[in-house]
Amino acid sequence: MKVALLGGGVVGSQVASLLQAGTADFAARSGEHLELVGVAVRDTSKVRPGIPAELLTSDAAGLVARGDLDIVVEVMGGIEPARELILAAIKNGASVVTANKALMATHGAELTAAADEAGVDLFYEASVAGAIPLLRPLRESLAGDKVQRVLGIVNGTTNYMLTKMDEQGASYDDVLAEAQRLGYAEADPTADVGGADSAAKAAILATLAFHTNVTIDDVYCEGITEVSQADIEAAREMGFVIKLLAIAELNSDETGVVVRVHPAMVARTHPLASVRDAFNAVFVQAESAGEMMFYGRGAGGAPTASAVLGDLVAAARNRFNRTRSHRPTPYAALQARPIGEARTCYAVAIDVEDRPGVLATIATMFAENGVSIKTVRQDGQEAGALLNVRTHVATEADLSKTVDALRGLEVVKQIAGVTRVEEADES
Amino acid sequence: MKVALLGGGVVGSQVASLLQAGTADFAARSGEHLELVGVAVRDTSKVRPGIPAELLTSDAAGLVARGDLDIVVEVMGGIEPARELILAAIKNGASVVTANKALMATHGAELTAAADEAGVDLFYEASVAGAIPLLRPLRESLAGDKVQRVLGIVNGTTNYMLTKMDEQGASYDDVLAEAQRLGYAEADPTADVGGADSAAKAAILATLAFHTNVTIDDVYCEGITEVSQADIEAAREMGFVIKLLAIAELNSDETGVVVRVHPAMVARTHPLASVRDAFNAVFVQAESAGEMMFYGRGAGGAPTASAVLGDLVAAARNRFNRTRSHRPTPYAALQARPIGEARTCYAVAIDVEDRPGVLATIATMFAENGVSIKTVRQDGQEAGALLNVRTHVATEADLSKTVDALRGLEVVKQIAGVTRVEEADES
Repeated sequence: MKVALLGGGVVGSQVASLLQAGTADFAARSGEHLELVGVAVRDTSKVRPGIPAELLTSDAAGLVARGDLDIVVEVMGGIEPARELILAAIKNGASVVTANKALMATHGAELTAAADEAGVDLFYEASVAGAIPLLRPLRESLAGDKVQRVLGIVNGTTNYMLTKMDEQGASYDDVLAEAQRLGYAEADPTADVGGADSAAKAAILATLAFHTNVTIDDVYCEGITEVSQADIEAAREMGFVIKLLAIAELNSDETGVVVRVHPAMVARTHPLASVRDAFNAVFVQAESAGEMMFYGRGAGGAPTASAVLGDLVAAARNRFNRTRSHRPTPYAALQARPIGEARTCYAVAIDVEDRPGVLATIATMFAENGVSIKTVRQDGQEAGALLNVRTHVATEADLSKTVDALRGLEVVKQIAGVTRVEEADES
Repeated sequence: MKVALLGGGVVGSQVASLLQAGTADFAARSGEHLELVGVAVRDTSKVRPGIPAELLTSDAAGLVARGDLDIVVEVMGGIEPARELILAAIKNGASVVTANKALMATHGAELTAAADEAGVDLFYEASVAGAIPLLRPLRESLAGDKVQRVLGIVNGTTNYMLTKMDEQGASYDDVLAEAQRLGYAEADPTADVGGADSAAKAAILATLAFHTNVTIDDVYCEGITEVSQADIEAAREMGFVIKLLAIAELNSDETGVVVRVHPAMVARTHPLASVRDAFNAVFVQAESAGEMMFYGRGAGGAPTASAVLGDLVAAARNRFNRTRSHRPTPYAALQARPIGEARTCYAVAIDVEDRPGVLATIATMFAENGVSIKTVRQDGQEAGALLNVRTHVATEADLSKTVDALRGLEVVKQIAGVTRVEEADES
């Protein structure tokens, strides 16, 4: 079986060398020998460990147009030319394995339809949470259940940064510089710290979990660029840690899904709090199965290659058996709903005048806007008081109305902070 | 598509009612309507929630012999008649979904071969760790990687008992009685507390993880019946908790696998230590992927039904697409090796005479038998001393030789205890 590789970077080199080192195993597991016949790269003069120089070509379009390829593995990243190359490969009858989250989160429906029409497989396990098997379990193992919520840490770079800020008390700028030095963060870290990487993964997870189409444009996205050491200390004081979460869940009447990425406080006793450094973990909550967690290495050459090669074997097995995997349809056609319909808990810090009746006024404002208070802590400070209000679950819309109403109160000097809180016992 | 159910107990009732409640979803996900056409039970006069009385039959053999069944779901448990019924269903051209760990761990190879020959699917995700997707990830997602070790808590009953013994200081007999009262343990708890249930699951996991055949007879098995409150307290003092672990790993020259079930100490900081009550969690360590953890509900009607229904949809999709899933072959043909080749760490408590030179004598004995000491703690006690020795990784064979040699020493009064220790940083 002829395999071509698009991309010869860290992941591509790992895929190539593991594929060649494990020839006998791959043949036994696939039913047929897998032969790497070409690797498309931008610069063919660069030495790439694990990739024989004679396989390199700079003509990616020519490689996928060969017509005799069984499987094309795309690990080049980015939208174009990856999209066009994959479409060409599919049109030429090859099955495709990709690790490209941005592409799948943007053009997933188009690529899936093309694969469907051509009768080939399109697998992308490596696009979310690296080596952790997540898409196949969602697509197949949970096909008989009703997923209610997917929640997780799916970006290693930001989790590494938040871990260091929490454990070493380092500043945002210092941990970003360190992450770049260690190769965890890219020179332009925007996709990671801005949340777009997590948002792409959230869209892919939501699409599979809820049998619907969700693209990255449907995902509400806040990154960690505004998270300061002061926020982390404040969270710590309350027994919480700040994590960048990707969350997809049904809205309250189950007619739509709300998909969001933002920093949130999680209790130190919550399993996600102990997911440190560049590790990923994803909770899936389903009606019958209850809560499950998947944990492992979310990035890096070898873990990503593991997921790519698992898909490669699956695609090869299917080809050998002259079949292909069932592709889940977006039959549920749920609407992607705006962030206002998201439901979570909040910590609201309010600078107030310290005079009798203030707490009652504030509490009334929360109640009138449909937000139920869980705890209030009042700390005295110069010429006033700081009220730390923690709420039960409320919609973002109600919380926003509450905050606006609070701002209009004479006794409120300012809203010092609003942070979402993921409570393990409320959802 | 016609579905028959063998068994109408807790799991069977859940499967039947969920299947009927989710008709539209199941049809959309499978490609075709799934109709429950019969449920074989022992006593047809018993009212079973979720199962229409007119579907009940006591003639299981007649049901599977109908000839028009597409999928047979076996949730009756036990070896016979489950084995014969499944073989008959396969021979009649039906795909089979089973939750039967004892059967798969004993006759898995026979049933797999029969399904292969008939060209039908045989799925058994529910047989290990309830709702947690584990077999499909091992079989498919990790098909491009090399699994080195599988280690986990796969029995909810014993984990519930050990959790209560640890957290409430209760005795073995008291927690067993409570577990029986709550329905976590059966009237005859032997299969759980004796370790056989975990051993069956370990055999199934090892078979898939290492592409080889492992049966329950290949599994070394110690249950928790000898674990006392004193053992748990001693572990706690050292910062450990006792868990019943199922472990499958390559032996040191990678020519065989050692599969074992036994109580072991794990550090309180180890992720497995926080797996409480009836939850299950399984670590999988693979060459490229690194370490992954799968966590969730390992038992109960609804979680088990979730796994069964996932398999049911997979089998129905395959039938709709006139295909079947690739069945992994035991091509690696690794030998199941005896417990002597297992490698782990140990805590050895030794009652010794309290006189000069004793520690040197003891330490020499460990060294001469190839066991490296990690720490020693000496506690004085009446007319002697208690040496608590913790070792680095050693083989069971070397450890046994060491213990035998220690017993022969004049200064050793008795070996007060030998406990295996799973260290996160040694393997």
